[in-house]
Amino acid sequence: MTADPRGPAPAPRVAHVGIAVRSIADALPFYRDVLGLAPLPDAPETADGATIVSLHFGEVDVELLEPRGPDSPVAKFLAQRGPGIHHICYRVSDLDAALARCRAAGYRLVDDAARTGAGGRRIAFVHPHSTAGILLELTD
Amino acid sequence: MTADPRGPAPAPRVAHVGIAVRSIADALPFYRDVLGLAPLPDAPETADGATIVSLHFGEVDVELLEPRGPDSPVAKFLAQRGPGIHHICYRVSDLDAALARCRAAGYRLVDDAARTGAGGRRIAFVHPHSTAGILLELTD
Repeated sequence: MTADPRGPAPAPRVAHVGIAVRSIADALPFYRDVLGLAPLPDAPETADGATIVSLHFGEVDVELLEPRGPDSPVAKFLAQRGPGIHHICYRVSDLDAALARCRAAGYRLVDDAARTGAGGRRIAFVHPHSTAGILLELTD
Repeated sequence: MTADPRGPAPAPRVAHVGIAVRSIADALPFYRDVLGLAPLPDAPETADGATIVSLHFGEVDVELLEPRGPDSPVAKFLAQRGPGIHHICYRVSDLDAALARCRAAGYRLVDDAARTGAGGRRIAFVHPHSTAGILLELTD
């Protein structure tokens, strides 16, 4: 058995945590006034029916997700569970290989193949039925 | 006006994300088999009526929280909302000062003063009624 010539895969990282809020404007003061976060977040993005602002905490972002309409996934989450932490996104070295490992292990995927998410990143969601109830996003 | 001789306060960080699970043993294979996380987590800790294992992702930990009894906060979260992301912990430069800012701004605290949490850290929780529904832990 020979070593992988690419060397060991980079360790997985938490890329961001997505938080479902009814109002980004109402949520922001805590981050500014209590945590002292500066500078202000980047301009909002739009993805999956939500307005998204990203707050940068070192190597991890916190995304505040505000629904843009009643049929968006974030609106349904708010209706069912109320505001709270919506998903966690892990960065892996090879998204396609991770999705193949999900399929091989019988994990149910929301996205059968990588698609383009916020910021133009390649992403896929793993269904919470497969991950102890937690909505997980994978990116590379 | 003179500069603070201590220099600017360190930027806030995400210290960890706490995930409520019914069974740590059932949740761990995803992190090992799909994300490729290695090495295995540290030995479990106990805090606030939960067994806690910490998974290390760079500068952020993911804590899997399994209730040890039906009256623990994590058991109540599972009963009300099902498994999911339970709280997010931010590291600030001065916990006592951050709690004073919370009180001054009218944020409701779960812990009026810093107390000892898992790993011997100084922590305090901010009530979700004050933070757009999100249970936030602060540490320094």
